[in-house]
Amino acid sequence: MNEKQMAGEKAAEFIEDGMILGLGTGSTVYYMLQELGKRVQGGLNIHGVSTSKATTNLAKSLNIPLCSINDIDGIDLTIDGADEVDGELNGIKGGGGALLYEKVVASMSSKVIWIVDSAKRVDSLGRFPLPVEVLPFGSRYLFRIFEKEGLQPAFRKKGEALFITDSGHTIIDLKVPRMEDPQKTASWLDGLTGVIEHGLFLNMADLLIVGEPEGPTVVHRK
Amino acid sequence: MNEKQMAGEKAAEFIEDGMILGLGTGSTVYYMLQELGKRVQGGLNIHGVSTSKATTNLAKSLNIPLCSINDIDGIDLTIDGADEVDGELNGIKGGGGALLYEKVVASMSSKVIWIVDSAKRVDSLGRFPLPVEVLPFGSRYLFRIFEKEGLQPAFRKKGEALFITDSGHTIIDLKVPRMEDPQKTASWLDGLTGVIEHGLFLNMADLLIVGEPEGPTVVHRK
Repeated sequence: MNEKQMAGEKAAEFIEDGMILGLGTGSTVYYMLQELGKRVQGGLNIHGVSTSKATTNLAKSLNIPLCSINDIDGIDLTIDGADEVDGELNGIKGGGGALLYEKVVASMSSKVIWIVDSAKRVDSLGRFPLPVEVLPFGSRYLFRIFEKEGLQPAFRKKGEALFITDSGHTIIDLKVPRMEDPQKTASWLDGLTGVIEHGLFLNMADLLIVGEPEGPTVVHRK
Repeated sequence: MNEKQMAGEKAAEFIEDGMILGLGTGSTVYYMLQELGKRVQGGLNIHGVSTSKATTNLAKSLNIPLCSINDIDGIDLTIDGADEVDGELNGIKGGGGALLYEKVVASMSSKVIWIVDSAKRVDSLGRFPLPVEVLPFGSRYLFRIFEKEGLQPAFRKKGEALFITDSGHTIIDLKVPRMEDPQKTASWLDGLTGVIEHGLFLNMADLLIVGEPEGPTVVHRK
């Protein structure tokens, strides 16, 4: 069993009958959804809130019941992937482009579990490019601000065209190697006009499940 | 001459040949655009960057040349209205629903002039409802956060339906009477997931032109 599958299946053990579940997006979540689909088929009663069109399609194909985010008061548990995670369970997400909906869902969740393969663990954040979702209107000016700050911005592409998120924005990927103060970086980005959201997910994950050669490891946030 | 017209026409005096101009939105900007249209007809060479579909339509009808925000490096001067302005030239904007593009344009501008009638001046911000532009996905949860904070949130409506901004988001209007620390309120809103932008425009206006019964007053930021 590969590490992603191991982490994904382990996370499914935390799902209980009656829960409203936040369903993340990505290649590790794929395995969790496969497992969840089997349990739903076996009689488990849950409702999922999807974080992307991709996850909506996958969940539907597995007969996992979905509900609208604006019809619920909160989410019991969200299971999602991450592009990198540090020792304090802070992470960078957004490699798949679904960071905005993923962050909204995480912010509504009583508990958040991240599932990753062992390559995603880092000592400090910044090895993975930091995705920033931006309003297309004025995005070139933001790009130049990032350039001046030495952040080596790159508009994300899909083939030759700009990548467009599920909510119609574009993504600028930044290089912030060895980020010393993720909270400071997050606040700076939050305050920039035209920044819709960014991939720094701080103090959001409660539990990390890592696929390792010898089996899944469960790490709690301190 | 009414106060709005007085302020709008006075502002047009600050426009110089060759400028790239940010064109605000609203009933006071209307008069500035009328005046600008006349000057363009008289040979003034400028290019405008519009902040809304409404202003784009009005500018086109007046033969004011427009350019795309992503084709320029910056804006020389932006002239816009405001819903209320305090003594430090901080303000609340967004009554017309164009706050997001207005804030992007202001953030790119070397100089910002606000034009208002005398009723818009306040000792401290918060008399006017504070508009918050939010992602529709998860907006009900944000609404409940605002409710818990005692901010009397109201989804903005257009007739029976939700008001939708030019970029496809919704607006929640908050009541924040006698705002003691606008910067604190702004930072709190900036950090909330799902908040796209808010109507607090702090340290953005350089000059305020107020229509008064006895003539226009020009106030500089301290």
